[in-house]
Amino acid sequence: MSLTNALPADVAKAAKLASHTLATLPTSARNDALTAIHSALSQSKDEILAANARDLELAKKAAENGELSLSIVSRLDLGKKRKWEDMLKGILDVRDLEDPVGKVTLRTKLDDGLNLEMVSCPIGVLLIIFEARPEVIANIASLAVKSGNAAILKGGKESTESFVAISKVISAALESTAVPNTAIQLVTTRDVIPQLLDLDQYVDLVIPRGSNELVRYIKSSTKIPVLGHADGLCSIYLEHTADPDMAVRVIVDSKTSYPAACNSVETLLVEEAALETLLPPVADALLAKGVSLRCDASSKSSLTAKLSAHSSAILQDAEDSDFDTEHLSLVLAIKTVSSNTEAISHINTHGSHHTDAILTSSAPLAEQFMSSIDSAGVFWNTSTRMADGMRFGFGTEVGISTNKIHARGPVGLEGLMIYKYKIRGQGHITVEYGEGEGQKSFKHEKLEL
Amino acid sequence: MSLTNALPADVAKAAKLASHTLATLPTSARNDALTAIHSALSQSKDEILAANARDLELAKKAAENGELSLSIVSRLDLGKKRKWEDMLKGILDVRDLEDPVGKVTLRTKLDDGLNLEMVSCPIGVLLIIFEARPEVIANIASLAVKSGNAAILKGGKESTESFVAISKVISAALESTAVPNTAIQLVTTRDVIPQLLDLDQYVDLVIPRGSNELVRYIKSSTKIPVLGHADGLCSIYLEHTADPDMAVRVIVDSKTSYPAACNSVETLLVEEAALETLLPPVADALLAKGVSLRCDASSKSSLTAKLSAHSSAILQDAEDSDFDTEHLSLVLAIKTVSSNTEAISHINTHGSHHTDAILTSSAPLAEQFMSSIDSAGVFWNTSTRMADGMRFGFGTEVGISTNKIHARGPVGLEGLMIYKYKIRGQGHITVEYGEGEGQKSFKHEKLEL
Repeated sequence: MSLTNALPADVAKAAKLASHTLATLPTSARNDALTAIHSALSQSKDEILAANARDLELAKKAAENGELSLSIVSRLDLGKKRKWEDMLKGILDVRDLEDPVGKVTLRTKLDDGLNLEMVSCPIGVLLIIFEARPEVIANIASLAVKSGNAAILKGGKESTESFVAISKVISAALESTAVPNTAIQLVTTRDVIPQLLDLDQYVDLVIPRGSNELVRYIKSSTKIPVLGHADGLCSIYLEHTADPDMAVRVIVDSKTSYPAACNSVETLLVEEAALETLLPPVADALLAKGVSLRCDASSKSSLTAKLSAHSSAILQDAEDSDFDTEHLSLVLAIKTVSSNTEAISHINTHGSHHTDAILTSSAPLAEQFMSSIDSAGVFWNTSTRMADGMRFGFGTEVGISTNKIHARGPVGLEGLMIYKYKIRGQGHITVEYGEGEGQKSFKHEKLEL
Repeated sequence: MSLTNALPADVAKAAKLASHTLATLPTSARNDALTAIHSALSQSKDEILAANARDLELAKKAAENGELSLSIVSRLDLGKKRKWEDMLKGILDVRDLEDPVGKVTLRTKLDDGLNLEMVSCPIGVLLIIFEARPEVIANIASLAVKSGNAAILKGGKESTESFVAISKVISAALESTAVPNTAIQLVTTRDVIPQLLDLDQYVDLVIPRGSNELVRYIKSSTKIPVLGHADGLCSIYLEHTADPDMAVRVIVDSKTSYPAACNSVETLLVEEAALETLLPPVADALLAKGVSLRCDASSKSSLTAKLSAHSSAILQDAEDSDFDTEHLSLVLAIKTVSSNTEAISHINTHGSHHTDAILTSSAPLAEQFMSSIDSAGVFWNTSTRMADGMRFGFGTEVGISTNKIHARGPVGLEGLMIYKYKIRGQGHITVEYGEGEGQKSFKHEKLEL
C-alpha cells in the first residue's frame, strides 16, 4: 500500500497497471500478502494506537465545539473493546475464504480441439470511499488483495492519522510480497475525489461505504458503476392469517434491534382484516420499546379503540412523506391496505428495493409477494434485518446493493469479480463453419466443470 | 407492444409497471406470447412488406441525393433473400431457449426452518436503441418477452414505416396474451432519447445496437448502465513457435472474413524472432486478400527483404495512431515486440479489452497471455472472430460487452437477468443469533439446487 499525494490520474493509472499484475498472482501469493499485513499490523499496535489517539483528541475537541457528534468520536476509537483484535482477525478471516479468482463456471466443447471456458477474474480497479471508522481500511485492503483487485482508498478525514499509520505499515509489509505496492493506494485529501470519479478509463467500480448522503453524492457524480445503496426503506406486510406471536417478534426485531441500519423496517403495511386482531399487540410491543408510531387514519382509529388510553395518546398521525422516508430511528409508519396486491404495489412504488417481508400463514400469498416485489431481498416470516452478508453465510460483506445489474442484495467477494472467456484451439477458423456445402457445425457440448 | 407518442416519463413509468407484471408470468405465458407474435407477423407479411417498401423508396431517393449510403439501403430491405423467414424463425428460436427466469443458483439452510435462495429474475426495464435493420425489432421484442423484461425500443428513422407496421401487429397479438401491452413500447422520434436516458429511476439498462458512434454517444449521455462496446480493437500476438500454416489461416480469417465486425483483428504483434520465418507467408496471404499492411520499421524491413518486389512495394508505414485505431476495413497494423510480456503490455494499453489472441505452440506462454490480458475474450490458436454468442452456443446474442461488471464478452439471455434473495422462515429474528450466552449460531448448510 502506498500513501500518495500523486495526481489522481497517475494514482489511477498506477492502480490499473498494478491490477494487471495482481490478476495473475496465484492464490498463495495473495494469501501470503494478507498474512504479512496481519503480522505487520500486530507488531505495530503501539504506533497505530498512538496515531489513533491523536485523531481521537482532535475529534473530542471538535465534539466539544459542537462540530462533530459524539457517536462519530466513539466510532473512531481503535482501542475500544475488541476493535483492534477484531480488525486483525478480520484479515485472517478474509484470507481463509475460498479464492474467488479462476473459478471455471462454464466449459463448452465448441468443436473437436476447440474448447471454451468462462473463468472468474478480478474486476480491475476499485475506488473505495468510506467514512470515519479506521478499522475499515484493513478490511477493505484485505478484500481487495484477496479478490485480486487493485484499490484506491479514501477514508474520512477524522481518521487521517490512523489511516496514514495503518497505510505505512501495510505498505512496508507488502514490500516483501508479490503484491505490487501500488495495488492499494491511500489518498488523503478530499479534493481528489471528483477527479477520481471522472477517471472511468482506469477505475472500474466505486464502492462508497458510509451515510446515505455520501452514497447519493457519489452516485450522482460519476459514470463509473457504483456498488451500494443510498436508501433502505424496508417494509413489512402484515397479513391477517399471520401467527400473532410471530408477528410481534419479527416486527419488533425488524424495527428495534438496530434502528439506524439500512435493513431495519420503516413502513408497516397492515391488512384491513388484521387491524383489530394482529395490529394492537404489535403496536403495544413497539410502544413499549419506545417506537413512535405514525399511523394512517384507519390504523389509528383501530388502535385507539383497542389500546390503553395512555398508549393511544402517544399515537401520531402519519403524513404522506412518512411513507417515503427512511427514518433510521425508532419511528415506524403504519398504513392500512386492502390486500396483498395493494401491499405489493405500495412497496414497489414507495420502497427502495432493498428488503421487504410478508408475515402470513398462506404459502401462495407469500410466494406471490416474493415474486412480485422488485427488491433485492424478499422474505417470508422473518426479520428484514436478516439481509446481511454474514447472516447469509458469505463470510464477509462488501456492501448491500440495490443495483439491478451485476450484484444485488448483500454482496460477498463474488461482487468484486467478473469473468473472461478463454478459448483454446488448434487453428480453428470461422469461415469453415456454416450451413453451406462442406461447412462444419459447432458441437456445443457442455463439459464437466 | 404499443406505439407511443406519450411523454418519455410516462412511457418509462408504464414500462416499469408492466415489468412488475411481466416478472411474475410463468414460462408458458411468455412463450405463448412469442407464439402469438410469430403467427400474427406471419399473417401480416403483405402489409409489413408494403410498409417496408415505402421505407425503401425514401431511402433510395436519399441515396440518389447522396444523403444515405447504399449499404444502409440494402440492409433496410425486409424482402431480401431469406430475411423475412429468418426474422420469423428467430422468434421461435428465442421462444425455445431455456427459460432464464426463476433459476435457483444458491440454496442455503441458514437455520432449521430458515432457508435462503438466490433466484434469477428479470432486470426490469430495458431501453434498446438500434439503427437501420428493421428485422431487429422482432428479435429484440422476443428477447425482452422471453427474459421477462419490459422494453422501450427506438429504431433508426430510415425504418420508421416498417417498425410502425411491425409494432402494430405485435401490439394486436399481445392483446390476447398475458403479457401487458406496455411491456414493449416503440418510440419513434429521436428527440425523446436524451429524456429517456435521464430516467434512471425507471430504466435499468440501456442496450445500444449500432455503430461505434451510437454507442459512444449513449455511454457519454447517461448514468444508466449501458451494455455494449464502443470499440473492438482486437490484436493477435504471433509468437515464433506458432505453426506456420495455422498462423496464416487464423490471421487471414481474423482479418478478412468480415472486416467491419467488432471481433476482426486490427493489430498484429509479431515476435522479433518470428519476423523472418512466420511473418512473410502471413503477409503474402493478407496482401493476396487485398489487405493493406501498415508496418513498423522492423517488420517492414524484414518483409521488404523477404517478399517479392511487387508485394514489398505496397507495404505501408504505420503511424502511432494506427495502433489505436479500429479500422473496420481491410487494414492491418503490424508491430514488432520482443516478448510475450511486451505483447501483453501493448494490448492492455492500446486494445479495447474486447478479444485478443495468441498464436504459439507453447502452452505456458499461452496461459500467461490468457491470464494477463485484460479482455473479455482471450484466445489461443483460434480466430478472434470466434467471439460471438451463436458460436459460443448461447442460442442468441444480446450484444458483446466490454464492461467490467455484470456481463462481459458475447452476452446471451443471462445478461438480461439479475437475481433476488428469498428467505422463507418461521418467525426467526436476528437478536437470537450471536456469540452471547444462550444465543444461537447460523448453520449455513449448502443445500442441493
